[in-house]
Amino acid sequence: MFDDATIVAIATANGIGSISIVRISGANALEIATKISKKTTFLPRLATLSSLYDINNEVIDEALVIYFKAPFSFTGEDVIEFQCHGGVAIANMLVNEALKRGARIANPGEFSKRAFFNNKIDLTKAEAISKIIEARSEDAVKLLARQLKGELTNFVNEIREDLLFMLAYTEVSIDYAEDDLPSDIFAQIKSKMEKIIVKLTNTLDASRRREGMIEGFKVAIIGKPNVGKSSLLNKLLNYDRAIISDIAGTTRDTIEESVKIGTHIIKIVDTAGIRDASDIIEKIGIEKSIQAINEADIVIALFDNGKVCDDEDKKIIELIEENLHKEIIKVLNKSDLQNKFDKTKIENFIKLSTKDDINPLVKKIELILDSNTHSDEMTLISKRQILSVENTLYSINLSKNPLETGELEFFAHYITEALEQISSITRPYENDQMLDVMFGEFCLGK
Amino acid sequence: MFDDATIVAIATANGIGSISIVRISGANALEIATKISKKTTFLPRLATLSSLYDINNEVIDEALVIYFKAPFSFTGEDVIEFQCHGGVAIANMLVNEALKRGARIANPGEFSKRAFFNNKIDLTKAEAISKIIEARSEDAVKLLARQLKGELTNFVNEIREDLLFMLAYTEVSIDYAEDDLPSDIFAQIKSKMEKIIVKLTNTLDASRRREGMIEGFKVAIIGKPNVGKSSLLNKLLNYDRAIISDIAGTTRDTIEESVKIGTHIIKIVDTAGIRDASDIIEKIGIEKSIQAINEADIVIALFDNGKVCDDEDKKIIELIEENLHKEIIKVLNKSDLQNKFDKTKIENFIKLSTKDDINPLVKKIELILDSNTHSDEMTLISKRQILSVENTLYSINLSKNPLETGELEFFAHYITEALEQISSITRPYENDQMLDVMFGEFCLGK
Repeated sequence: MFDDATIVAIATANGIGSISIVRISGANALEIATKISKKTTFLPRLATLSSLYDINNEVIDEALVIYFKAPFSFTGEDVIEFQCHGGVAIANMLVNEALKRGARIANPGEFSKRAFFNNKIDLTKAEAISKIIEARSEDAVKLLARQLKGELTNFVNEIREDLLFMLAYTEVSIDYAEDDLPSDIFAQIKSKMEKIIVKLTNTLDASRRREGMIEGFKVAIIGKPNVGKSSLLNKLLNYDRAIISDIAGTTRDTIEESVKIGTHIIKIVDTAGIRDASDIIEKIGIEKSIQAINEADIVIALFDNGKVCDDEDKKIIELIEENLHKEIIKVLNKSDLQNKFDKTKIENFIKLSTKDDINPLVKKIELILDSNTHSDEMTLISKRQILSVENTLYSINLSKNPLETGELEFFAHYITEALEQISSITRPYENDQMLDVMFGEFCLGK
Repeated sequence: MFDDATIVAIATANGIGSISIVRISGANALEIATKISKKTTFLPRLATLSSLYDINNEVIDEALVIYFKAPFSFTGEDVIEFQCHGGVAIANMLVNEALKRGARIANPGEFSKRAFFNNKIDLTKAEAISKIIEARSEDAVKLLARQLKGELTNFVNEIREDLLFMLAYTEVSIDYAEDDLPSDIFAQIKSKMEKIIVKLTNTLDASRRREGMIEGFKVAIIGKPNVGKSSLLNKLLNYDRAIISDIAGTTRDTIEESVKIGTHIIKIVDTAGIRDASDIIEKIGIEKSIQAINEADIVIALFDNGKVCDDEDKKIIELIEENLHKEIIKVLNKSDLQNKFDKTKIENFIKLSTKDDINPLVKKIELILDSNTHSDEMTLISKRQILSVENTLYSINLSKNPLETGELEFFAHYITEALEQISSITRPYENDQMLDVMFGEFCLGK
């Protein structure tokens, strides 16, 4: 799966800080550390101060050295950690010293990959680790920390056990005459299946609602030309801006579009191309509005208090009515102008004027995001996980009909597919395990 | 000297990395770590994996925790180190959890300050730590690593011992009749003094030559208008640019003016204001050239091969002759044009043309910097250290005359001043120590 070279990399962020960490993993890690530190004994996990030397015996730094003995390390291999003084130069010099002594530069994610192949982490934990580094809100961190602690692994294992139970009993039913089996076996299978379907469906729903927790919830603004979209966009972008813009390591593009609201990060999706439009006329058509509604987690629909409700407004109202499952916030803008808009056309709207601040709108967004995120429901954190659960659900649904008609081979086929799909979330499915369960649970003594 | 609050800070650079470190130092560090990790036992220096919890018992992360028991820690106090997953969010959350449990945010340099007041490091090591973080060349790191290992501390201690010896014998001479003392005592004192003066002078010279090792050597370009200064400036700035510009955490201004040559960093000092001049005419007068020679470590003096040696050139040649102690590289530019410049006016010049690359010039710069830096001489790394050595030398020189004339009280006064100055490099001078040496060495039994 990977070559057995000893790898080295800087583990801390690039820049000015007090401490940098250089990690070496692999069979030669200890030998390389012995050469660099001139220490001969390394007690596992014990942080000890040591001088570090380059290949010409010149001192590079005074640093902490920690040895993690295989398999009790992150990668499962021998790992050496140098905690050297910060800044860019020393850490790079240490990496070079490791290279001169036979290590090679680690590929991106290679430490985690080795951890996976050495059974130290499964795919869900690997994904949580990779996402937690980029997380920008407390909510995201907590969500990912749950996955890191094994919540999704346990969830997958429960579903697998149920599916294996169903499969095992079915295999027995195929091999044996029907009347040798408990009479309620199919009722049990059906009941388990229904529970799995509910579990998976709830997880998918919650995960879709909470998709924005990690990378930011998408907010779009729709409304006819001159209703005040670009003005609102700018007000939203300037709301609590400081908190986002001081985050280093994020791209400039992201910074410009991200705002922190409460404990959430929102990204203003400029579906309308408002920011690109060099002239004042805002470009937005009905197709763009449909696109905005499809893409965004929250849509802000603007109406002009100073103008009569025209055909364009009516189209947007129609769109809102067609998308009741979506979070769409209706805003009656320019509320300082004399009212001409028929307020009965839109209900539960928020009033804004160009003069006032946008706090009522921001509070409303925060409320929606709070209710979307503050729950203990199982949440998937990647497209890959969502796809696997969708595929699992698809196969289970396909298995319903053959179960009804008694075509148990077909039923077993679809359940096996479902098993493979759900297992792929943590590890590629191994057939051995199913066999273990079958023979372990059934004790057929054959 | 400082309040005894328990302090917390992120120790790694801000940005995207695999690992971040949060450090807590002070009497309550262990208690705070117990609350955050729910671990009850912490074996000193042993890295152990633990879940970390926020104040609502929600998991924030799975992290390594290391406890450094006072006084065997960097600060000399109880220190807890959390090695959490990287990125910005988790480390900030952990800092907040520590704050909620009674810690306060550390001031800049406060960990080092506590280390100093707890006698874990002296001022030279504190300075080396602070500079090593910003070091950008291998040479700088090695220089600072030597100071971190105590080279300057030892140097200061040797000088102090010699001064204390001189002072102690003088005090004895003041108290006792002259004939009670060994006859060669003043010869010994004078000989020690001369050795100290040579040592300090050499150190100052070497340090001034190597001043650019940490922040970059200053290179200036002089020459009359249209000789090709701005073209050469740009060629130098683009030489090996990539290596410098990928260093994060340095300011944009510095990046634009820094170039790596060999193992050195050079900074092109735009004394001439070439980069500011919006028109092609390069602004540089003779005063600017004098300024450039004074400020720079290396000066490049350009002459135009295609033009006769005029008054402006002659002024620059005069300046070169007046500054023979300076590293000034003479360059005959535009060597592809027909020669009109009297080559006998400048010797040992390098030929350049606007078409060729500047490798011969770069090599010459590298050679000069190599010879300036590649030596084992004691090097001071800060203005503060240089000033202290200058003041020490000044006081010692003042002491010469009273020693000759036998005014031993005045001599003792200046040597005491010198002692205070040299001691201030590592620690504020304490009179106790002088007394210890006196009574310890002399055993007067009074």
